[in-house]
Amino acid sequence: MIPQGFTFSATNAGVKSTENKGLDLGLIFCDRPAAVAGVFTTNRIKAAPVLIGMDIVKTGRARGIITNSGNANACTGNKGIEDAKAINRAAAAGLGVGGDEIIPLSTGVIGVHMPVKRILDKLEQLRAGLGDDVGAFARSIMTTDTVPKVVSRQAGKARVLGIAKGAGMIAPDMATTLAVVMTDARVESQVLDNIIKKAIKHTFNAITIDGDTSTNDTLIALASGYVDENIDEIDQAITEVIHELALMIIRDGEGATKFVKIEVKGAGTEDDARTVAMCIANSLLVKTALFGCDPNWGRIIAAIGYSGVQIQPEQIDIMISGYHVVGSGSEAQGFNEDTLHELLKEKEISIDVSLGDGPGKFCAYTTDLSYKYVEINSEYRT
Amino acid sequence: MIPQGFTFSATNAGVKSTENKGLDLGLIFCDRPAAVAGVFTTNRIKAAPVLIGMDIVKTGRARGIITNSGNANACTGNKGIEDAKAINRAAAAGLGVGGDEIIPLSTGVIGVHMPVKRILDKLEQLRAGLGDDVGAFARSIMTTDTVPKVVSRQAGKARVLGIAKGAGMIAPDMATTLAVVMTDARVESQVLDNIIKKAIKHTFNAITIDGDTSTNDTLIALASGYVDENIDEIDQAITEVIHELALMIIRDGEGATKFVKIEVKGAGTEDDARTVAMCIANSLLVKTALFGCDPNWGRIIAAIGYSGVQIQPEQIDIMISGYHVVGSGSEAQGFNEDTLHELLKEKEISIDVSLGDGPGKFCAYTTDLSYKYVEINSEYRT
Repeated sequence: MIPQGFTFSATNAGVKSTENKGLDLGLIFCDRPAAVAGVFTTNRIKAAPVLIGMDIVKTGRARGIITNSGNANACTGNKGIEDAKAINRAAAAGLGVGGDEIIPLSTGVIGVHMPVKRILDKLEQLRAGLGDDVGAFARSIMTTDTVPKVVSRQAGKARVLGIAKGAGMIAPDMATTLAVVMTDARVESQVLDNIIKKAIKHTFNAITIDGDTSTNDTLIALASGYVDENIDEIDQAITEVIHELALMIIRDGEGATKFVKIEVKGAGTEDDARTVAMCIANSLLVKTALFGCDPNWGRIIAAIGYSGVQIQPEQIDIMISGYHVVGSGSEAQGFNEDTLHELLKEKEISIDVSLGDGPGKFCAYTTDLSYKYVEINSEYRT
Repeated sequence: MIPQGFTFSATNAGVKSTENKGLDLGLIFCDRPAAVAGVFTTNRIKAAPVLIGMDIVKTGRARGIITNSGNANACTGNKGIEDAKAINRAAAAGLGVGGDEIIPLSTGVIGVHMPVKRILDKLEQLRAGLGDDVGAFARSIMTTDTVPKVVSRQAGKARVLGIAKGAGMIAPDMATTLAVVMTDARVESQVLDNIIKKAIKHTFNAITIDGDTSTNDTLIALASGYVDENIDEIDQAITEVIHELALMIIRDGEGATKFVKIEVKGAGTEDDARTVAMCIANSLLVKTALFGCDPNWGRIIAAIGYSGVQIQPEQIDIMISGYHVVGSGSEAQGFNEDTLHELLKEKEISIDVSLGDGPGKFCAYTTDLSYKYVEINSEYRT
């Protein structure tokens, strides 16, 4: 299922820690110039690799991606830029391409300088290892992820492959954390750009684990152009791959015990529906209630109320996992707390909110908030 | 320290639960018409007592306050309004005043109808108990609070007394949760209104525990007018009382192990400084790192970056508890992780952020996020 032209490699370079033997350095190479598009974090503090990647994407062409986990190379000043460029130049030289054709992606701790020498020492091994081991590459970009995230689709004669990482610092504002989507279809970079920008709106920008947007979020799409295929098929396959990757991130949310789909309809506009859905998705009180299977629907309606969206309280209708909980802004007739408590024990929960009869709707995805989330994120230097 | 004219009472009416013997019904009475002002939740879902209280405050005069904990009387429709008015009428009749002179304040579970009969049955006992037991009244409005919150100040010849509740569902948007401030000074209701609206900006609207704004938030100020005193002294005393109550709520934050003061300066405007301070204060990653004494300052700078405020990353300077952590957007020279780790073990933490040389500054207060917060809020029907 690997799109034609792409090869993968991963190794350990001691970026996560000098003792850690896990994979933390990765490479994707395309044997010909690929059309490229990307979306980047809207965080105003942008990591060095994000700044460099934005420049490369503007050219519309790239040959590959070099990744590391364990160090975000963010808030590292000019030295951070120089470090990333030095790694790029060395990696590119070994591949016979230009340093400005390799996009750097980094994830990990903020504010620490890159262990440049340790990385340079492993570049030859990394290059020599290029092959079809997508799984090893996917593992090399993981941080607190518990599973690698790889999705593929056939689109007529063409193939689409997506790889992502992410489990925490997940909030929707442009692409969330690192993702790479490849296809061997012939797609102009501008068309590719349109496809991914449209796709992220209801995928990566519709998920939240903890409301924190990273300094390194990047989604890169590459098209090697070996195959001519109907663009609508490619569009659909890429969108599906991105959607599936976004849901995999939620399912792997730090400490999450539940996958929660929040569908808001009947709002004045799609933006209003999104604001309400995200307000529910980010409410600590809703998330802790879900963790405890507490049938406390008042927390959902309170979150709707403080979203800032103009609503008519008496028009609010809420279903949880298909069970009618709120009708006309008050407890639904026949509502039984124990019934809802039982439904909330399921691993997958749906919350359907109707705000009235407006045309605006939006679907967001989130997790519950557990002890484990606190444990993972309170550990001394995670 | 009780302002002249005010008496207090509290009893158990089985509102929290029929088995619970704790105080859950409270009354404050003023022996003459008091000037009144109030600020109310900006949540668009407003509880029945909030809607009634807003109307009474508009008249500028009130005789007292009837409170209950255990039931928010929110999302209870017209019946909720009727229930609150029935309780008001009965309480007022026993006191020889009008039902529209008693302000109802409720806090507790959303969406459940009030146990009206149980409350009516206790009104005579409540009225008969009116006296100087401020502590009992303060305990009767507690929910997850672990300590009653009472503050008093002498302002020349006049006295100011404040009582509040709150430990969770605390986010800054008008007054947060229930608070009553009383004085025996002669203050016109419009002046009182100006004083509290100015005071809450940097007090109740500058605190956050979990980012959730309640449907019932109310702050009521009453002035019995027995004493003529300089209005500036009264203003200062009321502001100090409100400030102290706000900080008591943060110190009693659900599961909190730390009290965190976040001071942002050098922003373009005060609003920008507030947005940045609140973004840090509400970041789950910052709050869990503080709980774990993790010297991960990258999470603070990431929160500054996603606040949406126009900032120059290279101008950011951060001190934590007086220790220089970030200079010019990167790790400060000589920064030592272990030193910061030790400082973070203290119970009181200060985070000072400078964004540049703009005039905007704001000070916010928050807590860390602990296992205990998750425990308290995931319990089945808290």
